[in-house]
Amino acid sequence: MKIAIMGFGTVGSGAYESARIAGGIEVVKILARHGREGYEFLNSIITPDIDDIAGDPDIELVVESMGGVEPAREYVLKCLRAGKHVVTPNKNLISACYSELMEEAEANGVKLRFTSTVGGGIPWLFNLLRTKRCDEILQVKGIVNGTCNYILDAMYDKGADFGEMLKIAQEIGYAESDPSADIEGTDTLRKTVISTNLAFDAVVKEEDVLCYGIDTIQACDIAYLKSKGLACKLMMKAEKKNGAVEVYVEPTAFSADSLEANVKLNNNMITLTAKYIGTQSFYGQGAGMMPTGQSVIQDVIDIRDNKEQYISKSTKVLKADNSNAIHRYYIRHDRMCEHMEPLVDTYEEKDGIYYCISKPIPVEKMHEMGHHRKERGKEMFFAALDE
Amino acid sequence: MKIAIMGFGTVGSGAYESARIAGGIEVVKILARHGREGYEFLNSIITPDIDDIAGDPDIELVVESMGGVEPAREYVLKCLRAGKHVVTPNKNLISACYSELMEEAEANGVKLRFTSTVGGGIPWLFNLLRTKRCDEILQVKGIVNGTCNYILDAMYDKGADFGEMLKIAQEIGYAESDPSADIEGTDTLRKTVISTNLAFDAVVKEEDVLCYGIDTIQACDIAYLKSKGLACKLMMKAEKKNGAVEVYVEPTAFSADSLEANVKLNNNMITLTAKYIGTQSFYGQGAGMMPTGQSVIQDVIDIRDNKEQYISKSTKVLKADNSNAIHRYYIRHDRMCEHMEPLVDTYEEKDGIYYCISKPIPVEKMHEMGHHRKERGKEMFFAALDE
Repeated sequence: MKIAIMGFGTVGSGAYESARIAGGIEVVKILARHGREGYEFLNSIITPDIDDIAGDPDIELVVESMGGVEPAREYVLKCLRAGKHVVTPNKNLISACYSELMEEAEANGVKLRFTSTVGGGIPWLFNLLRTKRCDEILQVKGIVNGTCNYILDAMYDKGADFGEMLKIAQEIGYAESDPSADIEGTDTLRKTVISTNLAFDAVVKEEDVLCYGIDTIQACDIAYLKSKGLACKLMMKAEKKNGAVEVYVEPTAFSADSLEANVKLNNNMITLTAKYIGTQSFYGQGAGMMPTGQSVIQDVIDIRDNKEQYISKSTKVLKADNSNAIHRYYIRHDRMCEHMEPLVDTYEEKDGIYYCISKPIPVEKMHEMGHHRKERGKEMFFAALDE
Repeated sequence: MKIAIMGFGTVGSGAYESARIAGGIEVVKILARHGREGYEFLNSIITPDIDDIAGDPDIELVVESMGGVEPAREYVLKCLRAGKHVVTPNKNLISACYSELMEEAEANGVKLRFTSTVGGGIPWLFNLLRTKRCDEILQVKGIVNGTCNYILDAMYDKGADFGEMLKIAQEIGYAESDPSADIEGTDTLRKTVISTNLAFDAVVKEEDVLCYGIDTIQACDIAYLKSKGLACKLMMKAEKKNGAVEVYVEPTAFSADSLEANVKLNNNMITLTAKYIGTQSFYGQGAGMMPTGQSVIQDVIDIRDNKEQYISKSTKVLKADNSNAIHRYYIRHDRMCEHMEPLVDTYEEKDGIYYCISKPIPVEKMHEMGHHRKERGKEMFFAALDE
């Protein structure tokens, strides 16, 4: 099969290498402004012009690994309309434009696959869809951001502070120079949107997902939780309930002897619960050149070999609705004011800081409080209690 | 697709239910001596005669869920020769007759699939083969016997003794009335043979796999290991080394903050390490009517939909060779004799029992010692150190 790769950065070159290893896949064009160091032998197939790819009748499939929404969206639409299959690891694109792109692919009789958008090298979305062939998904959840997990794990392990560990994560290349998409939870949110859409035949909008990241966490939070036998992880969660989907991203405190608490370094672990097979988890490297490149090429192989994925027979499109989601939280606050008191079940005060375990609180309310405090530059952190 | 089910016990009926849920699969005959309670409506399609199935041209695929090697082997061969695909959860059969059955399937142009033989409902073997489409497997390992894990987990959690927990496991139906295949490691061994064959294009014989179970473990072993921050699990392990495969089954002591140590109850977790994607683990229910039945039907769907699995291009068949396998062990022994002293690095003595950490010892030697002691009814237990 002749394919093109659009965008030749880390993942693009990982896909190139994986295609070579797999065999039977020939990369005939690469969209890039210039060549890549170490890949000078590919200079003759590099083009900066999308029409060289969309207009090439020999190319059956295009790997889009440019990242970002535009111009990736425009280029992918062009390729789909030109009758080319598309495989992409671009979570920003799929999270933002899921319906539009899926419909365009269907209208043109081609496939759009994006297994590597969630969990990098882990065959999570692939197995999620495969499970649906004879089972019903009830819940998905997981650790899907390796940068956050690396920071949280190191804080737990070494007692280090957030800023210190973020800096180290940046130095070793796990975190971007602008780390906000990771630490504020936006990256996790996008992966949540994609997982939820596939799990529940839903069309969830990014703005409907409640999202609170780990950018306000401090060493004292980790230490307090650890003293109670708990470890904090940034989690995606989505659950089918009463004809809608509860879907949110939030720090969550797990018992130290849970699987989640023991996901180390920058690894990911993603879990489904289905009606008949029960709970299954998938663990591994959620990012990186080769793991992600391999996952991209697995999608390419499936399309090449005409392996259909599960297609929903449901005509009802589920939507996000968090209005009934409610559970207990750990909350760190700087005072026990009239807003806090009615919410709190028990608390400990140390050096003017209140470490609280809440009564069950609506998730919407907790997130609203958290964002309100953050916007005003006030101290606060919360984590759901996994119970 | 019209199929038959041979053997209508727990897994057979799970497969039947899963086929109903999946749709597009019609069970037209069931091989059984008599009907099953609650399934009286199927009495008209029950037959005790294999030739009613092998000779029925409408049946394209047969699910063999009888268990045991004979007559399952004979019946499966009959079906393959009659041009029918076969799907089976029967690990005894596939472990013992892998080459013979695979060759017979190939000679007759039909498929033989057995994803559910290892890990029950976990899509382990499926993903293992899928990974090989563009990567190379270096190692497989895992907790694949739910009964042993249930017992070990309860001993760790409650400090209970082995016999006590085995009895409870039997009462709640996790362990058979004759539990030897589970606790002596034979069940794990069979799953190891199957996983190893697929991972490494090997043909491993059961008798070439070193195997030591958990039937000699005692509460004092669990307590000693726990005091050192370790938890014991029964593990399958296979690793490609120098053109052969090291492959064995043994109790293994994991750090309490490892994923393995935190696999609870009767769950399984199976892990591959591959050259490019690194380490991936698959966790879930390794047994049970619906998880296993679902996994059987996933294989049926793949065959129905012409989804080919990875087929090895290797012409070299790897064999088992443990002669270079060497690592450290925890050993409990009742005396520090001239056999033990040269092997031991450090030990603690308490109430006449020696709790030892060994120097690196050949795995073959350790297993030989263990079996020698067991045969003579002498006290001993060992567990590999995961390090």
